[in-house]
Amino acid sequence: MSIIATPQVLHSEAPLPLRSGASIRDYELTYETYGQLNAARDNAVLICHALNASHHVAGVYSGQDRSEGWWDNMIGPGKPVDTDRFFVIGVNNLGSCFGSTGPMHRNPATGEVYGADFPVVTVEDWVDAQARLLDALGIRRLAAVMGGSLGGMQALSWTMQYPDRVRHAVVVASAPNLSAENIAFNEVARRAIVTDPDFHGGHFYRHGVIPKRGLRIARMIGHITYLSDDVMNEKFGRQLREGIDLKYSTQDVEFQIESYLRHQGDKFSDYFDANTYLLITRALDYFDPARAFQGDLTRALAATRARFLLVSFTTDWRFPPARSREVVKALLENRRDVSYAEIDAPHGHDAFLLEDPRYLGVVRSYFDSFKEAVR
Amino acid sequence: MSIIATPQVLHSEAPLPLRSGASIRDYELTYETYGQLNAARDNAVLICHALNASHHVAGVYSGQDRSEGWWDNMIGPGKPVDTDRFFVIGVNNLGSCFGSTGPMHRNPATGEVYGADFPVVTVEDWVDAQARLLDALGIRRLAAVMGGSLGGMQALSWTMQYPDRVRHAVVVASAPNLSAENIAFNEVARRAIVTDPDFHGGHFYRHGVIPKRGLRIARMIGHITYLSDDVMNEKFGRQLREGIDLKYSTQDVEFQIESYLRHQGDKFSDYFDANTYLLITRALDYFDPARAFQGDLTRALAATRARFLLVSFTTDWRFPPARSREVVKALLENRRDVSYAEIDAPHGHDAFLLEDPRYLGVVRSYFDSFKEAVR
Repeated sequence: MSIIATPQVLHSEAPLPLRSGASIRDYELTYETYGQLNAARDNAVLICHALNASHHVAGVYSGQDRSEGWWDNMIGPGKPVDTDRFFVIGVNNLGSCFGSTGPMHRNPATGEVYGADFPVVTVEDWVDAQARLLDALGIRRLAAVMGGSLGGMQALSWTMQYPDRVRHAVVVASAPNLSAENIAFNEVARRAIVTDPDFHGGHFYRHGVIPKRGLRIARMIGHITYLSDDVMNEKFGRQLREGIDLKYSTQDVEFQIESYLRHQGDKFSDYFDANTYLLITRALDYFDPARAFQGDLTRALAATRARFLLVSFTTDWRFPPARSREVVKALLENRRDVSYAEIDAPHGHDAFLLEDPRYLGVVRSYFDSFKEAVR
Repeated sequence: MSIIATPQVLHSEAPLPLRSGASIRDYELTYETYGQLNAARDNAVLICHALNASHHVAGVYSGQDRSEGWWDNMIGPGKPVDTDRFFVIGVNNLGSCFGSTGPMHRNPATGEVYGADFPVVTVEDWVDAQARLLDALGIRRLAAVMGGSLGGMQALSWTMQYPDRVRHAVVVASAPNLSAENIAFNEVARRAIVTDPDFHGGHFYRHGVIPKRGLRIARMIGHITYLSDDVMNEKFGRQLREGIDLKYSTQDVEFQIESYLRHQGDKFSDYFDANTYLLITRALDYFDPARAFQGDLTRALAATRARFLLVSFTTDWRFPPARSREVVKALLENRRDVSYAEIDAPHGHDAFLLEDPRYLGVVRSYFDSFKEAVR
């Protein structure tokens, strides 16, 4: 049985200072909660989202079939993160396009839609905004913060920015920073968007157009990096879309994989905001907690107090297991309590969103082991 | 000392039938030769080129510094493929944009520039055209056919299409077909070009514009797949382009890797033809000799008579060693004479063009071992 989710909104008038030096005021954060906060207010689990996800983490919307949250296989009553026990919070990040204040909203300073003027936000800024949401909810300390991919970076950043507010951090399919290749893929996607004539320097809203061509290309590139070579070969291989005869065409769809990618690109360009795509990929590029310590991740993680679970997937070539092991090693050098699971899964980076009994089992065991945070 | 190269042109009036069912007539092939054809006419080596290379394989053009051919480290006097001993031929493929007939030339049937109407050409069609060039040069049998990447596919196809015309085949950093992921990257690049408003359905020449945005994106994607993650991290890592302060911008260059990719994209869009890009990536997609044998590569290679050298590079994730091993295995199952070298090189797919003493040494030894073909 699914729980019914209801989005809520926190409005903040006080300016939030950002790492860029700018600040944002009069902003809203859209969030959802599942389960009950206990009397001790110590059973809260914050879920951080990745590129194109949102605050809608679990459950369904009333009267809307197939509206499951993006991590509904992980979070809910009796699930690995059990909402019968934990009070789970999903929050949409600033700059996103699913409810919280973003580039498509009005800038209170000018009265105009932000567009490209929306300030650049970082993982650290998102964590600061999430901490304010916890303040508003009366939660001083989280039982756990959890996320996959870019969400895992936020979970990791929480343990450095607010060490005394996090008991556990669950960091899935993530990395301590982007590699040059990761940045390269982001940059190609951004160039596709920015050079789309319908982008208009990021102020396309005024022109009543959407840079859909660029968004489609960005999404197609993204999709390739989310899947493993193996799973692509298994799902699509060299299958032709229609029958067995080649069409000998450079522009028509010939192979199944082409049809799949075009479909993914089309869908994405219908709902995702182009400026949000730029902002979120940039937040990924910038995340690098070791930077302030001359590249020394061990020193960067010295301030942490949490216990950790890290999970990686063998076929994830976007954030391969070696990147998670860097974090594990740096935490162990700080004598932190770390569990690490490397899941042999065929699905590539996307595995963190999928049903895999060993993966879900590891997370379940980890949350089951919590001594604190019983309702 | 470099040799001086001089492009030559073969004009063919007779139509060349193509795998698509179409044919092309009144076409030209641009080629270069290095060294001397011996009296027995049995010391010829044909070099097949990959995506953005050409007939200009070795040597320099008279009076033009820095005009070395793309495989000048491999081919020349005293080099691994020794032009003091072998008569080496480089030929630009049909549909390319470096001299041979391509989409930017006039269609004799209509008097109009071909554009998107240039027929789709396959690896097999290119081999047929190359065979006609050998006929014109009076060469019945090649000492060797050699190529890297897409050029390696042509070399492999030669041994199946014209088994009695090839003594040796050297297939470097290649594959028996593209994986789904390979096709996916090609498709994204093509979509970037085709959806560029300046593409005009492939007839942009008439409009006096060039779909440079699409070409830039295509080249950036290509470049990522040519390099290894390791070499990208070593060359660029997370280095900032300017100084040590972040600019906090989504559209400006922040990291060195972004600057490098943009530069590569800009350069490429200045000289490469958009229709050619579509044609050549499609030829890559279509190549699959096992297809006519229900996917059985061993049966596909049963017709071959040549001896083989295959070379792969450990960090090549575009055409990884496992793909070369598939070919080696299928040849061995046919009891063919095969040498195979897996070179431990950090450079990814690009390694086949670079100076690597072990790689060049393997090719040198292979050519030195030829009993036939002494000048």
